[in-house]
Order: sequence, then C-alpha cells, then structure tokens
Amino acid sequence: MIRKILIANRGEIAVRIIRACAELGIVSVAVHTDADRHGLHVKKADEAYYLGPDSQAGYLSVHRMVNIARASGCDAVHPGYGFLSENPDLARRCERAGIRFIGPRAEVIERMGDKLAARAAMIAAGVPVVPGSEGNLNSVEEALELATQIGYPVMLKATTGGGGRGIRRCDTPADLRRNYTRVLSEATKAFGSAEIFMEKAVVNPRHIEVQILGDNHGNVVHLFERDCSIQRRHQKLLEIAPSPQLDEAQRAHIGTLAVRAAQAVDYTNAGTVEFLLDNSGEFYFMEMNTRLQVEHPVTEMITGIDLVQQQIHIASGAPLAFAQQDITRRGYAMEFRINAEDPQNDFLPSFGRITRYFAAGGPGVRTDAAIYTGYTIPPHYDSMLAKLVVWALDWDALVRRGQRALQDIGVYGVKTTIPYHQQILQTPQFLAADFDTGFVEAHPELTDYPVTRSSSELATVIAAVIAAHRGL
Amino acid sequence: MIRKILIANRGEIAVRIIRACAELGIVSVAVHTDADRHGLHVKKADEAYYLGPDSQAGYLSVHRMVNIARASGCDAVHPGYGFLSENPDLARRCERAGIRFIGPRAEVIERMGDKLAARAAMIAAGVPVVPGSEGNLNSVEEALELATQIGYPVMLKATTGGGGRGIRRCDTPADLRRNYTRVLSEATKAFGSAEIFMEKAVVNPRHIEVQILGDNHGNVVHLFERDCSIQRRHQKLLEIAPSPQLDEAQRAHIGTLAVRAAQAVDYTNAGTVEFLLDNSGEFYFMEMNTRLQVEHPVTEMITGIDLVQQQIHIASGAPLAFAQQDITRRGYAMEFRINAEDPQNDFLPSFGRITRYFAAGGPGVRTDAAIYTGYTIPPHYDSMLAKLVVWALDWDALVRRGQRALQDIGVYGVKTTIPYHQQILQTPQFLAADFDTGFVEAHPELTDYPVTRSSSELATVIAAVIAAHRGL
Repeated sequence: MIRKILIANRGEIAVRIIRACAELGIVSVAVHTDADRHGLHVKKADEAYYLGPDSQAGYLSVHRMVNIARASGCDAVHPGYGFLSENPDLARRCERAGIRFIGPRAEVIERMGDKLAARAAMIAAGVPVVPGSEGNLNSVEEALELATQIGYPVMLKATTGGGGRGIRRCDTPADLRRNYTRVLSEATKAFGSAEIFMEKAVVNPRHIEVQILGDNHGNVVHLFERDCSIQRRHQKLLEIAPSPQLDEAQRAHIGTLAVRAAQAVDYTNAGTVEFLLDNSGEFYFMEMNTRLQVEHPVTEMITGIDLVQQQIHIASGAPLAFAQQDITRRGYAMEFRINAEDPQNDFLPSFGRITRYFAAGGPGVRTDAAIYTGYTIPPHYDSMLAKLVVWALDWDALVRRGQRALQDIGVYGVKTTIPYHQQILQTPQFLAADFDTGFVEAHPELTDYPVTRSSSELATVIAAVIAAHRGL
Repeated sequence: MIRKILIANRGEIAVRIIRACAELGIVSVAVHTDADRHGLHVKKADEAYYLGPDSQAGYLSVHRMVNIARASGCDAVHPGYGFLSENPDLARRCERAGIRFIGPRAEVIERMGDKLAARAAMIAAGVPVVPGSEGNLNSVEEALELATQIGYPVMLKATTGGGGRGIRRCDTPADLRRNYTRVLSEATKAFGSAEIFMEKAVVNPRHIEVQILGDNHGNVVHLFERDCSIQRRHQKLLEIAPSPQLDEAQRAHIGTLAVRAAQAVDYTNAGTVEFLLDNSGEFYFMEMNTRLQVEHPVTEMITGIDLVQQQIHIASGAPLAFAQQDITRRGYAMEFRINAEDPQNDFLPSFGRITRYFAAGGPGVRTDAAIYTGYTIPPHYDSMLAKLVVWALDWDALVRRGQRALQDIGVYGVKTTIPYHQQILQTPQFLAADFDTGFVEAHPELTDYPVTRSSSELATVIAAVIAAHRGL
C-alpha cells in the first residue's frame, strides 16, 4: 500500500524510521539542512533531499516537506517527534496532496493540542482530569473563588501554551492575584491569546503514560504504560516500561482509561495518553501526545511490537493485526537518554566532535543512535545523541543491566549524561522503585561524580593503539 | 557465593562473560597472549593477566590457567567455548585447587566426550541413537555384516575422534572395505587409538539441538531448541531459535528427550544435546556439548534467560530459580556469525586491520563482538569477529529484520561473511523455512554477489568526512 516514505525529521528518530522502512521493503527518503549533511539519516536512507541552508526552518517548513514528498514520488510522510509532528497543517496539506500522513487526522491533532478542548473531551468521556476551571477564566475574582473551592496550590496555565511557558504555580490567594496578570500577559505575548485557565497543582506526581494504537476501523488498543517520572525541568531523562510503581490493578485501570480517552476522540495511529499519579493513588489525565514518543522503544522491548511498523500499517489502511488480549508483556525495559550535555555544569549543551564512539552490546541491550566516530554534533538541534535501552526479566536485573550497559557504551570528545545516569542507578530510592517527578530536584548530589570515568581509561588505551597503528 | 571469576578464553565470548560478571557484581579476570594484548576482553575485564608469548598454547594450558586463577584470588573459572572448555583436566584441577569450574563435573565431560560411552548412556536411557555398532569394530568382516543389517550408506568413525576428522561415509561394501583401513589408520595417527565404530549415515539431516540447564540439586530443564542446519563443512554459519521446521509436538518431544539425556548422566550446568532430524521426522541423538555454545544468544533472545548468569548461579550451588513450566518463549531469533573470511575465495580467512566498524542498532538487534575501529585481527585464532543476533515476533519479520541488520552493520578493512548471509536470506528455500545440512552445498550460487556492497558507499562517504575533519 505504502511504497515510499518521506521522513520529515533528522537524527536518531529518522534512522529509526528508515530501519522500519527497510524491514517493510519501503523506500525511505531523508531530508537535511546544511548542518546535517553528514547526518547518519542521510547516509542510511535510500534517497536524500536538501531542505536549504536554514538549520531550523528547514525541518519546520510544511511547504517544503510536502513539495519534496511530491517531487520524490512519496506516498506517505512520517513526521517523527518534535518539529512538525504535532502540526495539524502538515497532516492537512499531505491529505490535500493525496499523500498519507503517518499519524492521526489533522482535527484530532488540533483538538488534543487545545488544552481546554482536550480536558472537555476527557470529562465527557469519564476520564478523570485534575480539578480546575471548565473554561477560560474571565476575572481574577472568578479565579480566587475557584481556587478556594479546589484548594491550593493551583496552577494558572495559558490555554494555547506549551513547552513549560505560560504556567505558574500559586500557593496562596496573594500568589494567585500576582500571577493572574503575569500569566495573562505571558499568554498574550508568547501565544497571541489572552486565554488562561486553572488546574489544581498536583505536587510531585508520578508521570505515567500509556501507549495506544488505533486503526481506521474503530479498533483501539493499549500497549501498557511507561514511567517517565525521572525528569529534569520537565525534560524526561530516563523512562521505564512497565512502571515498577504500579500494581496490576492500577495497570489495568490506567490502560482502560487510556483506551477510553483515545476512543473519545476517534483517535487513529500511535499516540500517548499522559497521566499524573498523585500520592493517594489517583490518576489524572494530563495531555495526549498525538505522535510517536522519544521513549517508544521501552514499550517495544516489553511487548515485542514494532510501533513504527504499526504506524505505517495503520496509515496504509490496514486493520490492527491483534486485539487487546493478544498484546502481552515480558520483563522490564529502561531507556537512558544520552545527551551531549554537562550535568556538572547545569546540563549545558556540549556540542563538538565525537572522537570515539563505542556502542554497548551483549544481552538485553538496544541502541538507537545517529552518531559515529568522527561525527560533529551540529549545535542547532537538540542534544540527544543516542538512546541506550536495556531489557531484563525483572526490576533488579534491569537495574544491574543498565549499570553494565552504561559502562559498556563509550562516547568521547563531548560531555554526556552517561555518568549522571550511572549516579541515578546507584540511588537507593531509585533502586527501591520509589520516585516521583521531584526526584532529580531532591537529589542534587547526583552530579557529585569524579570528572574522569573509569572507561575513559579504555579510550586512552584504544587511542594509543590507533596511534601506534597509524605509525606502522 | 562466587566473587571473582577467571575467564579462560578470549574474544567475544570472554567479553560476553565479563558482561555477565559485571551484572552480577562479580570481579572479572581476563587472560591474554602477546597477540591479544589489544583484545577488547583485556580492556573490559576488571583485571588482566599475561599468559605468555605463545599465541595458541597460552589459552590451552590448564596449568597456567589454574595458577593464574589461584594467584589472582579467583574462586571460579569460566572456560567459555573452544580451548579448554571440554577438557576434563581443567575441571578436575580446579576442583583440586578449591576453585569452582563453571561447567559440568569432570567425569561427565569425559563420558560425553567418548562417543561410544555417550551412545551407550543414551541407549540405556531410551534416547534414540542412529543405528550402529554397540562397541568398537573388531574386523572388516564384522563391519560388512553390520552394514548389511543397518543398510547403506554408513559412516565409519574414530571413537575418540572429533572436529570432523577420522570420519568417512561408505555407500557400498567396496567403499567400506577401502575406508575401514583408512579410518583405522587415521584414528591411530590423529588420536592415538585404533578404535573405530559404525553408524548409519543420515543423509542431509536437519541439525536440531536443545539447550539444557541442570543444577546441583537434581533439577534439569530445557530451554527449547535451536536449528543449526545452515552449515558449511560442519561449521555452523547461522542459527535459529526455535526451529521454524518443527511443529509443537516435535518441539515438546525433543525437549523431553534432551532432559532425559541430561538426567541419564546426572548432568549439571549448561549443556546442549545435539540431534539429527531425518526426512521421516525421526530424531537421533548425535552428541552432547558439555559447555556453553557459540549460538547461545538465540536461546536467550526467545526465553529472556541469561544463560551465562545461570551457569554462574548453578556453579555457586544455587538451585534453579525456575521450573520447566516457568520457561516460556516469545518470537524467533537468528544469529549470523560474522567471520573474517572471503566466501568468494573458498572462505579463506581474511585477517588484518578493521579500518571502520559500525555496530547494527535499532529494534530487535543484539551484537556480541570483540572488535572496534582500528583493531587488528590476530591471525592465530578463529575468524569469528562478531555475532549479529536479531529477534522478531514471527519468522517473516525475523528474516526481514535480519536483512536490515546485515545492511546496518559495517565492517571494513577485511572480507566478511556479511554478504554471504545476505544471499542466504534471499534464497526462497530458506525463506520458506525448508532447509537441511545440505543447503550450503546445494546452493553454490550463494557466493554470486557483487564484490562491492551498497553500504561500502556509506564507508566511502564517512571516510571522506573523517578525512575532512582531520584536515580542519
């Protein structure tokens, strides 16, 4: 059905999609800017097209993507994550051009992108949401009254906001008075809309999200949950599937809620329903991501199902090949985001040339990366270099395998988050599978590690070997 | 229980065992010759000791291994495969030195190493063996009479032989007369023993082997079978678990036979019972390998059980943590042996420097390797560089993933078996899961591929990038 796919993305996720295409016998088409001309996605794709010199705008131009898809004879476009993946315009323009968009319909992307509309849809479907305003707030008095009803702390949020901007926590009525005008102003400046709403603040919740798949024939299934509570400033650092913090009843419950959420909006293709889990064990709908997630591999590891291939099957119009009861899980998986950042320097990006790269190997280890020895990381994009994913039959074995794999991998020439992950995996609270979104903030000592890792010794030895060989 | 392990081996299997030690918090000790001083096992182990300058003798000296184990404070020795792994002397001397040998007891290694003794044990246990002589042959007349009874073709074999030597097929009585003296002479010359016996020749059987684990408390389980029918001159090229050529009844039957075989000799630790499957669907015991197999990862991929960690648990005296019914399998796995050989030149070894190495990645891919960019393959050891292992939910997806992973991996500077594997995976007979040990011989066209692989283009591009960066 689908024969040639334009991959409207770069880096590891573009490589991931190219691999799915290769396994399905589909021709893959990469795109790149000047900054990415040596990107691995360009080398691995069957064809590659130039987006122009502008490093950012290239990957963000709906117009150019659709033109290249058309010109290269693609019958589908995969947006990956980030960039245009949640831009309803790309979905719409693809449709108009007779090209399949590998994702949900434009109106679903739009609806779930509007926080109040998504909230309303969930309330109508009986999916619990955090208590809050039903619509936009009309005055500070209305806000104060509502806050008294639902209880402090509360959050003021820009309705059309995102990316952590236009959000403020209010612990007292005084806070609320002060922040009301601020958020209103931020919303207007940043998003061009003076709409704001209120939600009860859930303090240090667990971040639990459910992977779902829906086809064009009304079938929706979930593929269990992921625990993404280990975050720094709302950026996920490592993700786990299934959550080691849920019991089977909670797991079944959240799966059902997620399917109900997806059905409520006639969701198609792959999507993720994000929930907050509070200390009393209640789940609240947070948002729905209408695309593939960075952390999708942990779900693939426990279910054995290739999510990108499923996305392509669904977009081609095929019904899901399995029902809910056919989806089983085995063991636990954990993903480490290996970022070119210096955790000891406030996670400052550490771009530059990768002088040596060794992939981790052996049992239960998967790597999704777009780097190689000699690759220079362009400073224009996000700092994620690789996803190191481990799998094991139980939680303890998973942690030990994670520790081993983090020693096994070698990325030299730039600072990375590898030693920070090693620190996390030595924290008793983490090992006991008891952590929430406040974990990173509560553990400033995680950055207290020696600057030189033991395996840099390995790099030195190998560098000497290489040098000796060059001399021969 | 076990705190420090001497790994009496080299290359990828030494690295494999080091990884298991790391995950179990056990200190790993590597050994190396001069030729292996830059080996990855030396770099990855916690400690490394020098075996002496002799490239072969070093890894074959029981005396030196036990001395190093003792001197370095090891409480156990893992022999890997090859070298000393089936030498009862190492097991015995370890025992005497109060060091645990990670493998079966010396007398079991000895008994299964004697082909007639192993046959006799299997016959007594009711495990079918290929029809043949009950003991050594005493005269050519006895041989001729027996051959008439069991039917031609028959095999004449040296009783204490191995490695494909001292074996001849006889299609007629004239063949038998001629070969009788030859094999007798070969047996005397090569193995110092004039003992020979006869078996019915099973023509182009399927090679099916069962992984078993036995603890020191009388528990024996199997972990399903592997299909190793794709061989060249008795050397396995790729292995699959489970066999796509068995139905569930056959699978259950062969598993039961293997457990019975192991129980018959009070087998402990990991072992493999090899069977021949003839065209009529009958299984015959071939031999038992009293060690870890090269192809053990495919079993790990489908069962999720780490066999090397299990070996260590068993050697420490722990009972198996699971019963037969707890062992489940999911999907299919395939291992490609990536050898430094030139398939287009009669698989001539192609040693030298690896100028660039890229590991394969993405979903369902595992690599066990001991190579890196800049590594020079010593010519003294076997030519296997890496094991590329893929997993998928079903056979078709497995083959497609295998094809993709073989494109993904990049080994430059030496000739490898990668393109040969790519050819195998395009053969209709292989895709239809219908192949026996005659497959390679029946397909001489497998070596008809262009000398330049498509991905060498990738290497060229990347080499140019590297060169450009050096120039900066």
